Amino acid sequence: MKAVCLLSGGLDSTTCLAWALREGFDCYALSFDYGQRHRVELEAARRIARELGAADHRVAKIDLRVFGHSALTDEIEVPKGRDEAAMNREIPITYVPARNTIFLAFALAWAEVLEASDIYIGVNALDYSGYPDCRPEFIQAFEQMSNLATKAGVEGRTRIRIRTPLLQLSKAEIVELGLDLNVPFALTHSCYDPDEAGRPCGACDSCLLRAKGFREAGFADPACA
Amino acid sequence: MKAVCLLSGGLDSTTCLAWALREGFDCYALSFDYGQRHRVELEAARRIARELGAADHRVAKIDLRVFGHSALTDEIEVPKGRDEAAMNREIPITYVPARNTIFLAFALAWAEVLEASDIYIGVNALDYSGYPDCRPEFIQAFEQMSNLATKAGVEGRTRIRIRTPLLQLSKAEIVELGLDLNVPFALTHSCYDPDEAGRPCGACDSCLLRAKGFREAGFADPACA
Repeated sequence: MKAVCLLSGGLDSTTCLAWALREGFDCYALSFDYGQRHRVELEAARRIARELGAADHRVAKIDLRVFGHSALTDEIEVPKGRDEAAMNREIPITYVPARNTIFLAFALAWAEVLEASDIYIGVNALDYSGYPDCRPEFIQAFEQMSNLATKAGVEGRTRIRIRTPLLQLSKAEIVELGLDLNVPFALTHSCYDPDEAGRPCGACDSCLLRAKGFREAGFADPACA
Repeated sequence: MKAVCLLSGGLDSTTCLAWALREGFDCYALSFDYGQRHRVELEAARRIARELGAADHRVAKIDLRVFGHSALTDEIEVPKGRDEAAMNREIPITYVPARNTIFLAFALAWAEVLEASDIYIGVNALDYSGYPDCRPEFIQAFEQMSNLATKAGVEGRTRIRIRTPLLQLSKAEIVELGLDLNVPFALTHSCYDPDEAGRPCGACDSCLLRAKGFREAGFADPACA
């Protein structure tokens, strides 16, 4: 039983990979080098895939900068210190257009080559920082499309399922699930705007959501030790 | 009125671009450098975008070889001299897994940045060489997913439409449409396996379908002059 697991190297995708492994899948971890400012996460993804025992780990190089327009890939400042109301109200400039669509499309390609039936993605509809492609409606529509896009789907051999075990969890519940799954939190990287040594800024949306999750779970974040 | 137009540099995508321009769209042509063997098509795409008057043309570099497994990107021999029955029966080794899904995902990203409402793709369900992601069911499912994936879709501002003017045409009808639209056929490149000078092999599926189209339309292919 094979699954392709999208792995950014952050808290959510790492917990998602640990879940897929616990479910008994041979996991093929997939990361993207898309010119992100926070490239330290690719090194984190490599170490995590090895530590957790993924069957394989690949990094696909793709050019999202060709269209510009996101603080994650451009020389635009990452917003800091936003409160939760602002996060839920406004789609931030860290949004990369159609990112999850592109990532899932690549996962689908690899799934087809591997004859894998399942694709895991650590999206979350609660603490989702306002991204449209983290919502359950989007995931369902992508799954439906996937089963019309592939040889195995057309020939009725393998039904593709897009798995989102974190979809309805709060950040605190994700931390608790990660603890239960022995996720190596110290290896994970969440910050959108780390310093040159790879240390998190502590103030971007991603850092703030992570800190809130650990605080509410009543557990100290080992990556901040 | 803006549209993103997928442009491989072949007969179909060029005719599709000419159609979108005739419809009155400002056309943003998008090609992919995916490590294809037939890289001469990228140069063809550049000349066609300029000649037809696209508003912009970008080439996104993406790595499809990371998953291997297609004669278009690997050192696998491109099949030659297949008859039509074989083309319709078997999905060929030139199939790149999830290619149209990936191409449309990138088009969607650019459409979102441009606030374009329409995405043109020159797929064809008749002479489709057996690719699953050229069928109308797939296109409809992709469109549905697109409108759940984007800020503009979620906010109800711009409905994305995936346009496929060639979907139900035979290759001969595409040639006739191209003649009507003054498509510069001589600039287009279709072959999967050109020689070093960029000349078509004349025997791959793509060459055979093209030759059939011109023959049935009763028009000499100017690219073979």
